[in-house]
Amino acid sequence: MTKLIDFQTDPSKYRHWRVEYDGPVANLYMDVDENGGLFEGYQLKLNSYDLGVDIELADVVQRMRFEHPEVKVVVMRSGKDRVFCAGANIRMLGGAAHSHKVNFCKFTNETRNTFEAAEEDSGQKYICAVKGACAGGGYELALACNHIMLTDDSSSSVALPEVPLLAVLPGTGGLTRVTDKRKVRRDLADVFCSIEEGIKGRKAKDWKLVDEVIPNSKFDETVAERAREFAAASAKADVAKGIALTPLAKTIAEDGSVSYSLVEVAVDRAGRRATITLTGPDADAPADMAAFEAMGDQAWMLRLARELDDAILHLRLNEMELGTLVFRTQGDPERVAAHEALLLANADYWLANEVLQYWKRVLKRIDVTSRSLVALVEHGSCYAGMLAELLWAVDRSYMMDGEFEGDNRPSAALRLTAANFGRYPMGNGLTRLQTRFLDEDERLAEIEARIGEDLEAEVADALGLVTFVYDDIDWEDEIRVFLEERASFSPDAMTGMEANLRFAGPETMETRIFGRLTAWQNWIFNRPNAVGKDGALQRYGTGQRGDYAMERV
Amino acid sequence: MTKLIDFQTDPSKYRHWRVEYDGPVANLYMDVDENGGLFEGYQLKLNSYDLGVDIELADVVQRMRFEHPEVKVVVMRSGKDRVFCAGANIRMLGGAAHSHKVNFCKFTNETRNTFEAAEEDSGQKYICAVKGACAGGGYELALACNHIMLTDDSSSSVALPEVPLLAVLPGTGGLTRVTDKRKVRRDLADVFCSIEEGIKGRKAKDWKLVDEVIPNSKFDETVAERAREFAAASAKADVAKGIALTPLAKTIAEDGSVSYSLVEVAVDRAGRRATITLTGPDADAPADMAAFEAMGDQAWMLRLARELDDAILHLRLNEMELGTLVFRTQGDPERVAAHEALLLANADYWLANEVLQYWKRVLKRIDVTSRSLVALVEHGSCYAGMLAELLWAVDRSYMMDGEFEGDNRPSAALRLTAANFGRYPMGNGLTRLQTRFLDEDERLAEIEARIGEDLEAEVADALGLVTFVYDDIDWEDEIRVFLEERASFSPDAMTGMEANLRFAGPETMETRIFGRLTAWQNWIFNRPNAVGKDGALQRYGTGQRGDYAMERV
Repeated sequence: MTKLIDFQTDPSKYRHWRVEYDGPVANLYMDVDENGGLFEGYQLKLNSYDLGVDIELADVVQRMRFEHPEVKVVVMRSGKDRVFCAGANIRMLGGAAHSHKVNFCKFTNETRNTFEAAEEDSGQKYICAVKGACAGGGYELALACNHIMLTDDSSSSVALPEVPLLAVLPGTGGLTRVTDKRKVRRDLADVFCSIEEGIKGRKAKDWKLVDEVIPNSKFDETVAERAREFAAASAKADVAKGIALTPLAKTIAEDGSVSYSLVEVAVDRAGRRATITLTGPDADAPADMAAFEAMGDQAWMLRLARELDDAILHLRLNEMELGTLVFRTQGDPERVAAHEALLLANADYWLANEVLQYWKRVLKRIDVTSRSLVALVEHGSCYAGMLAELLWAVDRSYMMDGEFEGDNRPSAALRLTAANFGRYPMGNGLTRLQTRFLDEDERLAEIEARIGEDLEAEVADALGLVTFVYDDIDWEDEIRVFLEERASFSPDAMTGMEANLRFAGPETMETRIFGRLTAWQNWIFNRPNAVGKDGALQRYGTGQRGDYAMERV
Repeated sequence: MTKLIDFQTDPSKYRHWRVEYDGPVANLYMDVDENGGLFEGYQLKLNSYDLGVDIELADVVQRMRFEHPEVKVVVMRSGKDRVFCAGANIRMLGGAAHSHKVNFCKFTNETRNTFEAAEEDSGQKYICAVKGACAGGGYELALACNHIMLTDDSSSSVALPEVPLLAVLPGTGGLTRVTDKRKVRRDLADVFCSIEEGIKGRKAKDWKLVDEVIPNSKFDETVAERAREFAAASAKADVAKGIALTPLAKTIAEDGSVSYSLVEVAVDRAGRRATITLTGPDADAPADMAAFEAMGDQAWMLRLARELDDAILHLRLNEMELGTLVFRTQGDPERVAAHEALLLANADYWLANEVLQYWKRVLKRIDVTSRSLVALVEHGSCYAGMLAELLWAVDRSYMMDGEFEGDNRPSAALRLTAANFGRYPMGNGLTRLQTRFLDEDERLAEIEARIGEDLEAEVADALGLVTFVYDDIDWEDEIRVFLEERASFSPDAMTGMEANLRFAGPETMETRIFGRLTAWQNWIFNRPNAVGKDGALQRYGTGQRGDYAMERV
């Protein structure tokens, strides 16, 4: 699997999904093209999916918010007759490298979280209308919707058959959502997850696995009725027209470096790192939201978010040996703050809200990126507002202190905005500053009092906003030594360490999925019982069960 | 490592620890016998430890509570000159099976949690007095103490060098306690965990890694002073005399079955399961705590806890292929409730408190036991109070419903006591019933209203207290089919599934350690970068670093 994976798509290219827009209701059909797999070697039978299918879904969900803000209810359903969705494709999983499996699960998790949060964040509620078998990753699609409707016939059921059938765990939050979101009693969850054929009809409702069970003859009608009801009850403001998300301008050089309009990814293959430079706005903020909206997806706040998001995904899936990501910014921090301030002042306007919510998601994607993350605060940088969040998303940061010979850029300084105190929460429900200063409320108040100031190295250091400050004499050596050291450590140990240190404090369903559940899944994805030559994934479809070592660990 | 591991020990057998009792202060010296390893093939140099060392420590901590209730402060220190503790022995880890490593970490975690909670549960506060290098598992010993004092000299430091040195994670809660207990800033934690040689002196205090840094010349004196201060400030009642914990009567049959006085462990090797039968009290509850105390460790409540605890540990470490544990009880539920009631009514008396706290710990040990857990509620059973907790600790339960031919034992019935509503919280801070009925407060109130009643199958089922009820016709077949099916699944997938389903709701430092951290550790313990022939654990001590695959996952 060395083909370059492209996360950019658009409806004209979809092979697996289609959407019928009907005023406030969108009907989203999963209708996977068997022969449209991202890689060779498997067919996507029974509406099973691979990363390519999920990239389209992520695109649908994103465009729904920006291009179709009139939508208040999305009904997810199958475009096939007898199956809803069979989950992730097993042959794809059986053939994929460990790192691809893990990153595939991470991306699908992020997409599930995105449409699950669409109701709260954007007033777009997802209904899942299940007809036919809905198994494994198929049921996990349903679990991430806000309302699950199941038809009551002999072939429609929900199931998580991974453990009995495949010797792996449901990979997209299934176990956690069953107990923590659906509140299925834990012993019933144990039974449910042990039954290959799943559970149907009334019992699925009694066990809280679905919200409604409806006679087959009345199913379509009831689903349509429910969609209308939810749309009518929606608090979402009416919006006539969205903005178009046009293709990103992006070029990949021979050495793997990537250029967008505002983001440069410079690859240092020998050093096993990529440096991501973000460019601040080259013009003043739009005068008002009408001016912003007129710029469409070219508005700086939105353009930068899209490019950064794409860059992170590209590095995650296509550049697995680049173990360290170094963030840099260059630009005018005051302008950055002004661009963000326009959105903050209009946060109840749909487009301002969507762009801010998108930044929240991009920053969260960085939080769960399994690479060592570093930020450099150099002269001329523009870490303000949402860009300052990067400083607390990374594992550590370095800031220039004082004059540097031959460097006449403005002195390195950070700038806090109101957005740093609640607009971009992490998966744990806290801001990055709250996570950084767990239980240090006084310190946080002291920091909040500095909103709008240019905070140079000495002050930023004293406030604890950066890890290290260095002057002209030490800067280069210190960073070089650190980067070399980091590149020499075991990537696995780094991943485990970072996953633990990044999320102090409370846990949420989201952190449990990316933490506890993902880690167990990774472990099992490494065990011979699952992936060995006689393991369940390899033997799937041969009629033979996996040959398991029976020792408990 | 097929030698049978015995979790029973006593001070006369200690090779690695010694305690000097001095009224309310106990001085606990770690002085590991290099040649006292539990297995062949390694020497326990530099106060490094293996499971045998930790079994002694667990015994010390347990006896401190029961035999030395006069102790209010425990000072943990090294009995060696230049080293505090080098952590878990690397050669032992390098040579141990994956399952042993995982279970070793689990047991050490439980022991750390036990002395960490001793202050809150029993008024025994642990001070860690660090002189010399305190690295890896050594610092994790310190982290679990309630107060860390570090001497300020050139050789004394605290460190978590696992990631840079060994390509594994600290195995005993280190990462989680650094961020969540010590509240070390996450970027400083990243730096700290990347420095092999650790951090010393003032900086260790500034970064919150220790509570006090003291000049070497005043160290012993200051430690003694602090111990006196804490003892004087303790709210713990003065207790003149403890009770002795005498050796357990225990025989192991040729087939591996184990008999204690109140606990029988019947091994079915072909079925890959063990059935654990607990026997209720054969006499009325003691009249009062004086009578209870006169019985010493032979009082039914304490004897059963000790035997059950030992049985679980034995099965975990010595019987890894017995994947399912089946719990049974036989006895008079009213008597069980009466024995427990004596302690509940006197919970502010030290010994009653200690026995109840011990039950809390035993039940938690069951919660984190990586085996499929089942409870059978048969006629004649005595699931009352703390024994009823077993029904909600297990993955599922089966209850007899109605008359069974030829069975004249009293009808199967459960009995709730006040203790089920707060006395035995799980690691997530909730009771097992709260975890079972997450967000169902009305149901919980309905259940609480039934305290003291005999709840037979129909009622228990309607209340959701058991998973399945079966009559005479179905009982045997249903249970047989279930046990056979369970024994056919991949043990790894079961472990991952159970670890996720058992802990719904909030997470705590404890659940994070057993969930997120343990899972990542397990994963890394399976990766070639750590355990492969050129991995860091194998190469340790050769002067060569591990040869790492550099792909990020």
